[in-house]
Amino acid sequence: MDIAIYLFDGITALDAVGPYEVLARLPDARVRFVGETVGPARTDNGALALMCDVARSDVERADLLLIPGGFGTRGLEGDEPVLDWIRSMDETTTTTMSVCTGSMLLAAAGLLEGREATTHWASLERLAEYAAIPTSRRVVTSGKYVTAAGVSSGIDMALRYAADVFGDELAMTLQLGIEYDPDPPFDCGSVGKAPPAIEQAIRQRFAERE
Amino acid sequence: MDIAIYLFDGITALDAVGPYEVLARLPDARVRFVGETVGPARTDNGALALMCDVARSDVERADLLLIPGGFGTRGLEGDEPVLDWIRSMDETTTTTMSVCTGSMLLAAAGLLEGREATTHWASLERLAEYAAIPTSRRVVTSGKYVTAAGVSSGIDMALRYAADVFGDELAMTLQLGIEYDPDPPFDCGSVGKAPPAIEQAIRQRFAERE
Repeated sequence: MDIAIYLFDGITALDAVGPYEVLARLPDARVRFVGETVGPARTDNGALALMCDVARSDVERADLLLIPGGFGTRGLEGDEPVLDWIRSMDETTTTTMSVCTGSMLLAAAGLLEGREATTHWASLERLAEYAAIPTSRRVVTSGKYVTAAGVSSGIDMALRYAADVFGDELAMTLQLGIEYDPDPPFDCGSVGKAPPAIEQAIRQRFAERE
Repeated sequence: MDIAIYLFDGITALDAVGPYEVLARLPDARVRFVGETVGPARTDNGALALMCDVARSDVERADLLLIPGGFGTRGLEGDEPVLDWIRSMDETTTTTMSVCTGSMLLAAAGLLEGREATTHWASLERLAEYAAIPTSRRVVTSGKYVTAAGVSSGIDMALRYAADVFGDELAMTLQLGIEYDPDPPFDCGSVGKAPPAIEQAIRQRFAERE
């Protein structure tokens, strides 16, 4: 199974790395990190770079395409060569996934028209700009399109995919392997669960940067 | 606040990237990814490389040192130059952290002697080889040493650290920012929760590779 994960400057690293830790352990998986060119893609806060091992122009197909998010997606929503690549890759996939604002690129490419989809909660309504149906769930499946909510949700998405496609036993093995028995300090990780002032502060930051 | 995250070949990417997504957003945080040399460090399964932006020899202090894990730690447990660097960095830190088998390097450096500590569940008993006290909790704090269990536990560790040092409001903001409202498909993410055959398969893999 060929898996392509798209990297770009301004990515949120966990969007890509969370699902990668699951997907790379699927049977016969070959994961490739794809960028504009071979070389580092730097994250949204600049502190980390992930290596693109192959250039977009050299990747024409994949069984699974994953588009992560990050503030960098905003600039790519109007980048026709990138959207064209996503469209042509999507013609070859059995599953097309996104995490966080990665779904804005799938939507901008026209792939989510009339479909339920999700993204980071602070960007959710923007999906409607591309005629997708904003859907507030952690993982949303519509046909072959699987979109996940913000940043950390890609781990849940990938484990569910593993269970759906390869069965519960394999998915449980992967979950135990990465010791995914989460114990967050607060019950505030989704919209509506945190104090309004905290939600507002994040919305403000998104409005400024995204 | 200077934060140094150590990278090496054979790292598990999520061990580093999970906590990084939290720590990099702390007030006045400067995160540096440190390797043997400047350049890519490739993960345990080979599919991803993270960039080391600075060489170990050029980093002499940090307020916070984080040692991630991965199968690559086994070969470093006897690497005296690496252990010496960890010891001398530790003399400058206010907090020294690890995720997964990263704690084996802290232990091998002699920093966890007589202290409670944790690591990936399949390696837990090995901490006793270095006179640490194997402790089966997701996050274990002993003085300035904070060790986390396997792979995904670093997210919980970093959020707890944020709450302890910067207060609940900031930690809640970071948790909501990365939409950390986990919803794993199975309740099998820790030892004793999964079917014994699954546990045994992972123990076997660790025994072979670690």
